[in-house]
Amino acid sequence: MSGAQQPIGVFDSGIGGLTVVKALITNLPQESIIYCGDTARVPYGTKSKSTIVRFSLENVEFLLRLGVKCIVIACNTSSSWALPTLRKFFKVPIIGVIRPGASAAVRLSKNKRIGVVGTRATINSKAYDAAIHRLDPAVKVFSQCCPLFVPLVEEGWTQGAICRNVVETYLRPLQKQRIDTLILGCTHYPLLAQAIRQVMGAGVSLVDSGEQTASDVRAVLAGNDMLANGRLKPRYRFFVTDEPAHFHQVGHRFLGQLAGSVERAHLQG
Amino acid sequence: MSGAQQPIGVFDSGIGGLTVVKALITNLPQESIIYCGDTARVPYGTKSKSTIVRFSLENVEFLLRLGVKCIVIACNTSSSWALPTLRKFFKVPIIGVIRPGASAAVRLSKNKRIGVVGTRATINSKAYDAAIHRLDPAVKVFSQCCPLFVPLVEEGWTQGAICRNVVETYLRPLQKQRIDTLILGCTHYPLLAQAIRQVMGAGVSLVDSGEQTASDVRAVLAGNDMLANGRLKPRYRFFVTDEPAHFHQVGHRFLGQLAGSVERAHLQG
Repeated sequence: MSGAQQPIGVFDSGIGGLTVVKALITNLPQESIIYCGDTARVPYGTKSKSTIVRFSLENVEFLLRLGVKCIVIACNTSSSWALPTLRKFFKVPIIGVIRPGASAAVRLSKNKRIGVVGTRATINSKAYDAAIHRLDPAVKVFSQCCPLFVPLVEEGWTQGAICRNVVETYLRPLQKQRIDTLILGCTHYPLLAQAIRQVMGAGVSLVDSGEQTASDVRAVLAGNDMLANGRLKPRYRFFVTDEPAHFHQVGHRFLGQLAGSVERAHLQG
Repeated sequence: MSGAQQPIGVFDSGIGGLTVVKALITNLPQESIIYCGDTARVPYGTKSKSTIVRFSLENVEFLLRLGVKCIVIACNTSSSWALPTLRKFFKVPIIGVIRPGASAAVRLSKNKRIGVVGTRATINSKAYDAAIHRLDPAVKVFSQCCPLFVPLVEEGWTQGAICRNVVETYLRPLQKQRIDTLILGCTHYPLLAQAIRQVMGAGVSLVDSGEQTASDVRAVLAGNDMLANGRLKPRYRFFVTDEPAHFHQVGHRFLGQLAGSVERAHLQG
């Protein structure tokens, strides 16, 4: 099918989506990727639905101008609020991170008590609740927004007393609910996995949507006969809306070694 | 002079600038004010100079379309990086918060050792260092960026163990430098004044630029024969680039009782 050799388009409010890119590169090594991080307007998680939808539309328009064959929304906030609108406006396959995360959690949970942590916008959207209940209406979902988690990660304070105290403060209500599975509903949160594991204990499985999202992307591409055939060397291009310097400095925390160019994107905004 | 009855235009990256509006209302009660908070793209303090300048230009253009007689940059980050460019592009008087804060600190300091806390962008700009040294080259300036202060304030965690631990972590290097004056170089930080005072001790004077900025605005308006004559009842209009709901919820933390309309602004971005 035409388009199969085109790159996968990935966008996020900033750099957190690189954790999803990492999973895509590992699981779909023959695919080229174009990433757009809206670092000039980051974060989305503190903002309202209408603004999140508008910014998301602009990201997708930018990626489509570069000829991507599908869109991966590597941002929980945008997946939560903008996915239905994006699917209405654009014809290419669009994959968010909510359904994959919900699906992995429902499979993992034994006691059917699942926790979700995310930004204020993600939690307020109740998108995870809806996705989980579509898979299993009997699951009880307990949600908690954690506005300080992203700033902690961006500051690099992912261990130590402050980190531990913040994590404990947010997760205490979830501990009391005896969840056995916790969805890390923000692409920054896997960098806090160790601190979260210390607080929640080994009995609680942590779900990072990245791996399951890569699996979903593979399924969608295969279903549309759009998997790259592996004859071309994959190419990675990274775009950001603020200056690329910061991306160079911190991108490796999320992605490991960066193998690709970093350029400045000019969206409408 | 024509224009004296026009409102003062104030802009900020979000809602922190309301601490400056509060000082303006108290000190210039006859003046009308139009405020523009760029809540869709907040924060500026983590972003690069070129992005901060672009966003600042768009804020000023928006306020000028509404007929303001002068511009107050109620944002340390924007004052630090964008003020020279704004003065080049626009003819109206433009007042930032850096010079007023520097001036108040130089007057207060006895041992000529002044600390500055602010966002990463403000501290990296070295705008306070330059402003202080223009007033007194003998002063020693010690700077510290505190990226977690704004998220703490926005979360409402302005006291308690986490707040205290974060404040101590950032301010420890300044304590060691035996400063006697500390500039709160971000409009959010006055809400942490109590915690900062507990850590720094009563011997360190805290400088909140708001009051001195209002005094500078009065001087500039008087100098241009632009002070409102007090015959019209002052009017306050607040614009935000994200939905106004959040502004309604948290604006009072900064401003006290809101007396004015809150509308959505459409900048270019």
